[in-house]
Amino acid sequence: MKNLNIVPFVSVEQMMKIVLHIGVERLLQDMAGYIEADFLRWESFDKTPRVAAHSKEGVIELMPTSDGEYYGFKYVNGHPQNTRSGRQTVTAFGVLADVATGYPVLLSEMTILTALRTAATSAMAAKYLAPEGASTMAIIGNGAQSEFQALAFKAICGIKNLRLYDIDPVATDKCATNLARYGFNITNCPSAEAAVEGADIITTATADKQYATILSDNMVGAGVHINAVGGDCPGKTELHRDILLRADIFVEYPEQTRIEGEIQQLSPDHPVTELWQVIAGHSRGRTGPRQITLFDSVGFAIEDFSALRYMHDQLAPGNHTALDMLADPDTPKDLFGMLLRAAG
Amino acid sequence: MKNLNIVPFVSVEQMMKIVLHIGVERLLQDMAGYIEADFLRWESFDKTPRVAAHSKEGVIELMPTSDGEYYGFKYVNGHPQNTRSGRQTVTAFGVLADVATGYPVLLSEMTILTALRTAATSAMAAKYLAPEGASTMAIIGNGAQSEFQALAFKAICGIKNLRLYDIDPVATDKCATNLARYGFNITNCPSAEAAVEGADIITTATADKQYATILSDNMVGAGVHINAVGGDCPGKTELHRDILLRADIFVEYPEQTRIEGEIQQLSPDHPVTELWQVIAGHSRGRTGPRQITLFDSVGFAIEDFSALRYMHDQLAPGNHTALDMLADPDTPKDLFGMLLRAAG
Repeated sequence: MKNLNIVPFVSVEQMMKIVLHIGVERLLQDMAGYIEADFLRWESFDKTPRVAAHSKEGVIELMPTSDGEYYGFKYVNGHPQNTRSGRQTVTAFGVLADVATGYPVLLSEMTILTALRTAATSAMAAKYLAPEGASTMAIIGNGAQSEFQALAFKAICGIKNLRLYDIDPVATDKCATNLARYGFNITNCPSAEAAVEGADIITTATADKQYATILSDNMVGAGVHINAVGGDCPGKTELHRDILLRADIFVEYPEQTRIEGEIQQLSPDHPVTELWQVIAGHSRGRTGPRQITLFDSVGFAIEDFSALRYMHDQLAPGNHTALDMLADPDTPKDLFGMLLRAAG
Repeated sequence: MKNLNIVPFVSVEQMMKIVLHIGVERLLQDMAGYIEADFLRWESFDKTPRVAAHSKEGVIELMPTSDGEYYGFKYVNGHPQNTRSGRQTVTAFGVLADVATGYPVLLSEMTILTALRTAATSAMAAKYLAPEGASTMAIIGNGAQSEFQALAFKAICGIKNLRLYDIDPVATDKCATNLARYGFNITNCPSAEAAVEGADIITTATADKQYATILSDNMVGAGVHINAVGGDCPGKTELHRDILLRADIFVEYPEQTRIEGEIQQLSPDHPVTELWQVIAGHSRGRTGPRQITLFDSVGFAIEDFSALRYMHDQLAPGNHTALDMLADPDTPKDLFGMLLRAAG
């Protein structure tokens, strides 16, 4: 019998090695497959709102979900002022556990994993929502999420041309440099208006803004798909309200998106379509070439679950650490005896 | 600057070494001090109900709380059938985090830590509730929790004599053997009735029973303090209802205890006293020598928080492991660049 005290742990270093070994694009493709499969069986999941602890500096959240076979949760913080002390605004780790025994089967860093699952989810959604033959994507906001988005849309949707813009040109240069080896045609644009010219898909992934208007109404032409990633908490949006009124809006989990997403700007009964319904064939995605589609992405626990499930399937000798995390006495009732014997 | 990617991890092996290094009795005493201090400032804590995921095999729970400076949560499962596969019915781990940054500052095994905090809480409560000069304790149910209870009551309440009973005599022998070196007078009793004879304190710590009657009404005489540890979930109780009606009942968090504790047998408005109110001097504990007091313990998130806080203060070079758990790019916006540089 294997050692019941052990939980496999994937560190940040090990996560990077796994990602590089598989290859970022292939991994994004494969992970999108896991996410799509889980969206397809959406109704089999326990869906709970996140459990949030708010403070004046930020928020700490636990995001649990379960499909009855596995249970997963993510710990994630959001602290905008962390960058002042050289820390990340958002860090995360997560656990996958076996429902039948309650024993954790994976502990993983999830800062990188969340970046990957967010991009994989966006591109998976765009398969159903973007205009046919889309080849050009604008990315407004060239921070930590931008390269992951670019590569996911290349691997999953065939995007070839990138039009980058950020209020900080250093961020755009960083993004373009990081992506140089991946075979995109990259244009660094002087404004958001310039970036969206000719784009089939517009990805907004800005941060640290309160009710910003990254896209104004006149910037969005017919037929475009908007992938709105940055607006993801109460008080943080990126799109002008008029765009929302012209678009068909697709969301992960309406109960959460109405609080955290772009649609917090709309009335609580404004019609939206759940993405899983499109994937399952119960609702229509894109219906014509002039339709404006919007994926109002905020990130949902099931995506983290899919990402943990994917990583659990990648565990192989040497690519993770065995953590002695669960007490495993010789006889289950003799916890104290185990302690005494540790002295001898 | 210290490595921001690192979270200190206390494994099961390291936990046992720390406990043995400090000494079980001293540790229980010190930890009870932390728990008492946190009960004293009860109102400064965020108190949320546990977040439970139920399945046919058991339950997985997250128990978060925060005092505004630190945030803690425990992951704990309860799977009665686990012993069939050599696993523990209950395992646990937990995290303490800095509220100001959201960064975890401790990841710890919590199976042993929970056993310690449960015993420390019981004995801390008994300081306020047990009859003066109590020297004899009956322990009914001699499983994994029994030795911890015995040592906590010795260290904190001065208990000298133990009267042990379990339906499984092997469990009683195990408990008596494990405790042999600690200087108790130990009597192995043939029945629960025999065990309670002459006891000042009765601890019930049985497991795996549905609405069991470990104590019937005639077994409980005037002046006794009952420390009811085993009844801790819906459908699981240990005491006959008539005992509850004669006793003054003290609980951790009424909202939770009315669902999980002995008092689930009573009407929802049956008067109970919150233990923290006694510690803070707002309510009275024991008021006379003939009063029957009952601590209806189910375990609350603040006790886990206190235990994590205590362990965090014990961290010293060499007694834990540095886990590379938080992504820490050179520049916060360049997560992808960190990944690329890991390849080089």
